[in-house]
Formats: sequence, structure tokens, C-alpha cells
Amino acid sequence: MTEPLHEIRAARTALTWLIEPGNEAIWRLVQRHGPVAALAGLMDGTLADGALRAAARTRLADADPRQVAALALERAERLGARVLIPEDGEEWPAQVADLTRMARAGATATDRDAFPPLCLWVRGGWPVAEALERSVAVVGSRAATPYGAHIASDLAYGLADRGWTVVSGGAFGVDAAAHRGALAAGGRTVAILACGIDRSYPVGNAALLDRIAETGLVISEWPPGAAPHRHRFLIRNRVIAAATAGTVVVEASERSGALHTLRRAARIGRPAMLVPGPVTSAMSVGCHEFLRDEPAARLVTGVAHVLEEVGRIGADLAPPVRGPERPEDRLDPVLNRILDGVPTRTPAGAEEIAARAGVDLRSAMRALPALVLQGFVRQEPGGLFTLAPRRKRG
Amino acid sequence: MTEPLHEIRAARTALTWLIEPGNEAIWRLVQRHGPVAALAGLMDGTLADGALRAAARTRLADADPRQVAALALERAERLGARVLIPEDGEEWPAQVADLTRMARAGATATDRDAFPPLCLWVRGGWPVAEALERSVAVVGSRAATPYGAHIASDLAYGLADRGWTVVSGGAFGVDAAAHRGALAAGGRTVAILACGIDRSYPVGNAALLDRIAETGLVISEWPPGAAPHRHRFLIRNRVIAAATAGTVVVEASERSGALHTLRRAARIGRPAMLVPGPVTSAMSVGCHEFLRDEPAARLVTGVAHVLEEVGRIGADLAPPVRGPERPEDRLDPVLNRILDGVPTRTPAGAEEIAARAGVDLRSAMRALPALVLQGFVRQEPGGLFTLAPRRKRG
Repeated sequence: MTEPLHEIRAARTALTWLIEPGNEAIWRLVQRHGPVAALAGLMDGTLADGALRAAARTRLADADPRQVAALALERAERLGARVLIPEDGEEWPAQVADLTRMARAGATATDRDAFPPLCLWVRGGWPVAEALERSVAVVGSRAATPYGAHIASDLAYGLADRGWTVVSGGAFGVDAAAHRGALAAGGRTVAILACGIDRSYPVGNAALLDRIAETGLVISEWPPGAAPHRHRFLIRNRVIAAATAGTVVVEASERSGALHTLRRAARIGRPAMLVPGPVTSAMSVGCHEFLRDEPAARLVTGVAHVLEEVGRIGADLAPPVRGPERPEDRLDPVLNRILDGVPTRTPAGAEEIAARAGVDLRSAMRALPALVLQGFVRQEPGGLFTLAPRRKRG
Repeated sequence: MTEPLHEIRAARTALTWLIEPGNEAIWRLVQRHGPVAALAGLMDGTLADGALRAAARTRLADADPRQVAALALERAERLGARVLIPEDGEEWPAQVADLTRMARAGATATDRDAFPPLCLWVRGGWPVAEALERSVAVVGSRAATPYGAHIASDLAYGLADRGWTVVSGGAFGVDAAAHRGALAAGGRTVAILACGIDRSYPVGNAALLDRIAETGLVISEWPPGAAPHRHRFLIRNRVIAAATAGTVVVEASERSGALHTLRRAARIGRPAMLVPGPVTSAMSVGCHEFLRDEPAARLVTGVAHVLEEVGRIGADLAPPVRGPERPEDRLDPVLNRILDGVPTRTPAGAEEIAARAGVDLRSAMRALPALVLQGFVRQEPGGLFTLAPRRKRG
């Protein structure tokens, strides 16, 4: 490709406006001919096949895509936003190319329409590839319970605190709690939207999205002004899944869109994690069902588990969870049994203790001095034994 | 065996008093010579090896086992209890013999001391084998939260309501809630104790245990009067696991004994089920960790899930309507993809297969051994893989 970068940028912007992102045919056209030639060929009908031409026809009749792109780029500039394209080199998050593999193997049309984005609209100054290099998606139900909001915020805080970028969808509920948790840790967070980066959707999150853009990023495939159509959430989800090292669903009802993102993550080969919750909560039903049905799903209960999945071995491995150890836990089973046979009050001899414990006399006689030495048992006059005070119950 | 049944019963009772239940050597002795000859041989030292003789010596010095057994049997009769033995035929719960398999394969001494019980003390008139034929164990933390108690009771109610026997350990917390839930449904429930059936341990559950025995059963391996030594709970757990069609843990801290029962159930090949809970609850930590660590563990959220695991096809499971099934149809999508990446002829390593399948290396490394086990893939020398012959096309 010898075209100047601004022409390529305009072409990719125009193509994304003409055909909804994720489309397989347009992605192949761009791969084969480059964005500028692909746009020209789609517009004059020389390159595109029937289906693709038909898909573009309504919009082509509406306006000149090059003009639309130019206006959108102007508008973005006024908003302090920019359009990032693969040709920009190292700022492009190369990992989204993993979508190709998944989309190629897709069994259904929906799966196949999950090809990588042609461009990304970006609000915020942080280089995108750098922001997403060590990132985890934390997503979930819009109708989060206080439990879900607490967990999402806590998890995001912990991830941000350890230098991970928290990515979410900028929605109410779990998404908002995750963004807020990351910000509370002084971390940076990325919202990937299903509408134009200037739409502030949902309106109630406008201030939050502004705050995210101050230190982090607000990203979208759609040009400024684009509406949050319902199907766009499904298209958007693949970018959240592919841009991050793994996805965590905190709360999800049975048909939650968050599970769609998680399924995408699993199919790309990224860790698909879920936080369990009370089985009495409708907002955890989706998490539990996914954990039951998908062998690749991982149950996580906190930041340590998440880092174990996405982190590098040695750097971010979770410490094993253990209960407070009681001293007698370290005793072998036979010593433990003999200890059980030692009376609390009335001192007993080795023989009686052996009988109570159900072991032979020799084992008891060998074990008792060891138990005395270790402070579990007290030796009384006359070769008798009782439990040492701290072992006494009641 | 030509001895009268009462002599066999007395011998098994005496043997259980002489050596703690689950012991491998005594079990083998009884298998080989029958209970009466085994007891005589152990007493006069002609049959038992050194370790077994030594283990029995203290108790033998203490009293005549035949007399102890006679007294215990008298005492039981006064209590309205009885001793059940395998020679009683159809009332004996034959499924406890499955413990033999597990114990034989046991890697540690503790695992090997999990042989079947020699006899069972029983309070309550319900025939034991019948009571346990369609039974599920519902166990968990003594320090159950209101959430755990609610779930245990609800689950037990649902199981009892569908004609299943709820088995538990008669302890505080989850156990008590499970027994109560079953009784509330008008169902019958079975408590399997780690002490004598007359001990009413814990004391606070005495009334509950009485109520259980009225319609259901209170069972123990130990004779009346036996104390609830700590090690006996571990010995007892194997009976709960083996007597039932599956075990559900409702709440468990990291080191809960309920997880020991569940591990036993899994090793015998019974469904090992856990109910998740809030990740903020210490009483669910053990459940979540088990679900994370044990591939055989099944997450269940209610009675329908439990019945799906333990129920028989046709009776408790609606069989899904499907076309003719190929073996690989039963594989999940990820396994199927990885299978698609395995070459027919030239063996390939996990890395190459992962690349071909479009999954990450870790997923491939986790999946390949499973595919080998299930006969889809053949492991070649040098850690390489090819398709197993029946999968080859052309």
C-alpha cells in the first residue's frame, strides 16, 4: 500500500460506516486489496460480490461514504478524539487479530461475523496497545445486585492496584462498578462502547465516561453520533473479548449479554472466568449455568484467581487458600488418634490411652513422649498422661 | 459359613470393637476366614500378623471381646437397636462394598483404611438397604450461615418430596438443616454417626436424632456408648459417601470435614456436588476451592441439578431428543476444535495442534490427555499426538 495514511484512515472509516463491523466479506476485501481499493471497488461495484453490494446499497444511496468519513473525522477532531487503524503500527492492539481464527472456524453466520475491527474511534490520550497490553475485562449484568456491584468494584480495584487495565462496556451495574473500582485504585480503565464515543450512553453514565476518558480510554468501532442499536452490543462484545487477556463475568442473569462476551472470549482461547454467588439470586443464575455447561469456564472468587488465569506463571500466581492451621493438623494420623485417646481430666496410662485410641500399646508408648515434647500432652506423676491445657475443650 | 447368624453377629461386633473400622488387615481376615474364625484366630494369635495382633493386644488385655460384644448387643436390645451384618442378606446396603475398590487403590495409609464396615448398629425400623437405595448425602459446615441452612433445608425438602432419602451426619449446621428439611417434607432421613447410636452427640441435636429414628434411621459402626473421637469422623465419612448415590456439600470452610466426605464420594465414583455461595462468605470458600481444583466436582444450585447427577435415565431425567449421535458430538466445542487440530498421520506436538485449532497452548495441553483417555487421540512417543484409528477419515 502506497497511499498516504490519511487516505487509508478515511477509507477504513468509510467502510465501517458502509457495512457493520465484523463482516467477513468486507474484511476479506480489505485484506486482499487494501482499504482504499476495497472502498473504491465496493462503491463502483467492481470488487464486491452481490451480497456485499446489496448490503452497502442503502447507505451508498444515502450519502457519499468519503464525505461521511471526512465529516466524522472532523467531528472527532473537535471532540479531541481520533481514529486508530492497523496501519498506525504499534499503537494498534494487535491481539484483536485473534478474532480472525475464531470467525474463520465459526459454525454460524453470527460467529463468522466476528472478524476484527477495521478501525477504532478513541477518546483519551493513552496509547491503545499499551493500555490493553495487560488488561482484563470485567463485565456483567446491568441490573447488578449490591453483591455484584461490590464484587465488581473490589475485583477491579485489585486488578488496577496491580497495574492491570480494567476493560468494560460502560453500562450500568457491573460495568460501571468495575470502571469505578479501577478509578478508585488510581488506575486507568477502558470503556469499549456499542455506540459513538460522544453518545454518553447510558446518559446516567455520562460523567463516568468523561472521567474514564481523562486518564483512560473510551473506544468504539462506530463513528461519533452512532446509536446504540441492540445488535451492536453483540458486535462490540467480540472486541472486549479479544482486546483483553481474559474476561470475568461478575453477575449475569440467564440470558445476559455478558455471557455472550464470555463465550467469545472462550472461543478465541482467552480465559473465561465467572464469579459465583448465592444460588438464591437470579443475577447469578447465568454464572452458575455457564460454569455447569462450559468445561472451559473457570470459577474465580477474587483477584488472585483472575491473575492466576491471565497472569504469567511466577509473576501473578495465586497463593493457595488455606484455613488457619491448628497445631495438631501437622501430626500424622496415628499420633492424632493417640492424642484423641488422651483424657482431659483424669490422668490415664499408656495402656488405657492405647485402648481408647484403638492402637497397639507399643505405638502409644512410642507416641506419648513425642506428644509431650511437642506440648500436646502433659506427663503426670506415675507415668500417667492428660491433655496439655491448650488442648482442653470446655 | 455354617455358624448360626447370632454367632457371626457377635463376632463382627467383637471385631469392630477390637480394631477401629475401615482397617484393611481385619477386613481381609474376615473375607478369607469368615468373622467367627477371624475373631478366634485374632484372639489366639494363630491367624493375625504382628501388626494386627499388636493393635488388638491392648483391648484384648482389657476384656474378653466376646463378652463385650454380648453386653453391647444386650444394651442395644434394651435401646430398641440392632446390629446389621452382610450375612443378613437383603437388608445390608450392598453398595458399601464399593469402598473396597477405592481402599485397594489408596495411595496413603489413610486411604487404605477405608474398607467397608463389618457391621452397622441401627436405630429405627426401616430396612436399611431400602432406606439407602435412593439416597443422597447432604452435608456441610457445622457453622452454617443462614444462607447455608436455608439451602440445605430447601434441598433436603425437595429431595424428600421426590421420594429420595436424605442422609447426613447428624451434626449442627448444614447436617441438622438437611435432616429437618427432609422431615418437614414428611420424608424419612438417615443420620450416620461417628459415635454410638445412643450418644446423642451433639447433645443439642438429641431431640432431632430421636425424631429421625422415629421414621428414619440412626446408624453407626461403633457400639452403643462409643465416644465421638475426632478420628472417627473421618472413618465415618466413607460410609456416608458409599451408602448414597451422591454427596452434596452445601457450605464448607477451607478445612471442612464435609469436603473429606466429598473426596471419598468422588474416589468411589459417586457424583461429588457442591453448592456455590457468595464469594464474600468464609463458609463457601471450601466449596469454591473444591470446584476449582477437582475436575470431577459438579456445581449444583438446586434439587433439579442434584437429580440430574444421581437420577436414573427415564426416572429422573428427561432424555434430550437428538439425532443419531457420533462419539465426538458429546465433546464440548473447545475439545472438538482441538480434536480437529490433531493430524491424521504425521504426529504433532501440543503447540502445533493448538495453532491448528486456534486455541491457546494451555487449553490444548489440558484437553489432549482427556482426548487420549476418551479414545479419540493416540499419544505417540516424544509427547506427540495423532488421531486414533477410528477417527481417521480416508
